[in-house]
Amino acid sequence: MKRGIFLRLMTDTLIKFTRGVPPDESLPKEELAQLTVEMLSEYGNVVLQYGSSYGFTPLRDLIAQERGVPLDHVMIGQGSLHLLDLFCQKTIRHRDIVYVESPTYDRTITLLRRAGAHVSGFGLNSDGPDVAEIEQRLRGGDRPVFFYTVPDFQNPSGTVLSRQKRERILELADQYRFLIIEDVPYRRLRYRGEAPPSFFELNPARTVQMSSFSKLIAPGLRVGYVVAAPEVIAGLAKYGEDSYINTSFLNQALVYGFARSGQLDAHLGRLKVLYCERLDAALASLDAHFRGIARWYRPDGGFFIGMTLSKKQKVGTLLQVAMEAGLALSDGRGFFPNNGGDEFIRLPFCALTPDEIRTGISRLAEVVKKMR
Amino acid sequence: MKRGIFLRLMTDTLIKFTRGVPPDESLPKEELAQLTVEMLSEYGNVVLQYGSSYGFTPLRDLIAQERGVPLDHVMIGQGSLHLLDLFCQKTIRHRDIVYVESPTYDRTITLLRRAGAHVSGFGLNSDGPDVAEIEQRLRGGDRPVFFYTVPDFQNPSGTVLSRQKRERILELADQYRFLIIEDVPYRRLRYRGEAPPSFFELNPARTVQMSSFSKLIAPGLRVGYVVAAPEVIAGLAKYGEDSYINTSFLNQALVYGFARSGQLDAHLGRLKVLYCERLDAALASLDAHFRGIARWYRPDGGFFIGMTLSKKQKVGTLLQVAMEAGLALSDGRGFFPNNGGDEFIRLPFCALTPDEIRTGISRLAEVVKKMR
Repeated sequence: MKRGIFLRLMTDTLIKFTRGVPPDESLPKEELAQLTVEMLSEYGNVVLQYGSSYGFTPLRDLIAQERGVPLDHVMIGQGSLHLLDLFCQKTIRHRDIVYVESPTYDRTITLLRRAGAHVSGFGLNSDGPDVAEIEQRLRGGDRPVFFYTVPDFQNPSGTVLSRQKRERILELADQYRFLIIEDVPYRRLRYRGEAPPSFFELNPARTVQMSSFSKLIAPGLRVGYVVAAPEVIAGLAKYGEDSYINTSFLNQALVYGFARSGQLDAHLGRLKVLYCERLDAALASLDAHFRGIARWYRPDGGFFIGMTLSKKQKVGTLLQVAMEAGLALSDGRGFFPNNGGDEFIRLPFCALTPDEIRTGISRLAEVVKKMR
Repeated sequence: MKRGIFLRLMTDTLIKFTRGVPPDESLPKEELAQLTVEMLSEYGNVVLQYGSSYGFTPLRDLIAQERGVPLDHVMIGQGSLHLLDLFCQKTIRHRDIVYVESPTYDRTITLLRRAGAHVSGFGLNSDGPDVAEIEQRLRGGDRPVFFYTVPDFQNPSGTVLSRQKRERILELADQYRFLIIEDVPYRRLRYRGEAPPSFFELNPARTVQMSSFSKLIAPGLRVGYVVAAPEVIAGLAKYGEDSYINTSFLNQALVYGFARSGQLDAHLGRLKVLYCERLDAALASLDAHFRGIARWYRPDGGFFIGMTLSKKQKVGTLLQVAMEAGLALSDGRGFFPNNGGDEFIRLPFCALTPDEIRTGISRLAEVVKKMR
């Protein structure tokens, strides 16, 4: 009987705080179907044939114009993670040091390690990583090949790097000659307030900027891009051509058509309304349930709120008790490159309704209280 | 004046014997546009969302059924080259030996070398590589991690490996414990005659079979696949997930829809008629112009005829004289992993009309006579 209730909970009302994905209802299915007809009629022979590993020129051109750079600064690939993988394969030699935020995007840690890097994490405050600690490490001689950062509405914490810290990190990058890899898939998903300038805007020569349309249109299109100095782009494009010839221009043409027609801007407007309501529901629920037993960031955009429980946790037990209460959580330790994360919980709020968010956070509070 | 004629030739009538691509007129633009509408309506939330790195299940299922294997034997990726790249990255350790045919697909040589392999080529006869030489090398202790082969209508030679040689190579693979990687993008493009069984059909446990829909539907879809033992597939899928999460299910759904509706079979029927006429035009022209000054294979399918000139050539001069005569040729040496290829010319015949093929081969004959 108890087992029956458990199974019903699992299948009927499991709330998944596990992955940062857009909600199905946000995917512009009909618009993309219509655009495919248009794009195949206009660019059929280009998008169905082999192409250049730099990507579909009209979309590259559009991104270059947005960034105010020439075309040779832009390459399109199959999602920004894949471009990061190419960059790591090309750049990292065994035991090279790479700096990251701690916590950071878990898939990046996997890629960096696979490429042979020694990954060093720097603790996050609400305005970004501890810059004094970075400086100290650099002075000690541990020069990284690059610093990987998600400066806007970071995955998994939701934090935004302050302008001041961005500038200071760039000074250090100039002084110690390392690159900044900034991954900005959430930058355009700001629901309020003003954005600080991107690393690329502050110092394009030091920065390799990666982004994607996965969170802005649809992950399934697998269209990401990198903006960087032409010699970096040329190296990546050669590496990409050797690996896969080119990525699908059809998908890139869909993104291009969506942007060209103004649908992307309109879609972003709708997403911001949808997601802001969900963010606010999450913040209100956290205020109601977690005062005094956890701390969390209060992002103005993006997909995630990162929270840290005050009391020491056993992760395995926490995840199991949560699952029994109808709540799927990610293992917080996966986001921490060196150690820690036992008390860290990532709450992706975009793919859940406000009601689901409220129910989920209330369940989480019960689970945490049970663990005390 | 002479320069003027040269430029006119270059722009108006340059005949490109350079790349093995399908002709633009063969790309099913309207059919794919219509299918996108259908597939987005039927599978929109699946194909536009993140997915599994194994690929879109309905297409995997279709390929598995065709091969008579369970679903866990199939993974879909972004073209077979990309899957080969994943396989190389995962499998090859520095200085591992890999056997290939000589000549072989040039992009494979690049990938193998980049992964750190020592690439050993075995000379081709009209029925495949020299098996006695392979056996001798194995007896000498040079065991490869795998033998990479394009057994059907090989790129660049057009040859087909005989059943007898396939069986003998598989015996050696069992005896010396190495894998066969068979790349079969042209296997379904047979214009006459009977196909020998594939390596996978003869010995699935020893074989990793790669193929793609680039030559059967459209290269721009970037849909390839690998069929192998479940443990090989599971390893590749994990490696792929770490690299790029998943490749576009939208494109995979288009391939699935094209096959499910019977359009693929009908399309292949049309391609065979179109390409067979081009193959016959090429063979007739070669007979008319190259008797006694070159030898060439007589394929019954695929995209390529490989020919070898009898007289020693300086490749740079040959390519330049050809270009001046309005003929773009690939550097034959690129297909040879160790040495040779100066006299080798690859003639891809599918993307040229019979008239262009006749003009091209007649120009080539003049060029070659000029070089004597």
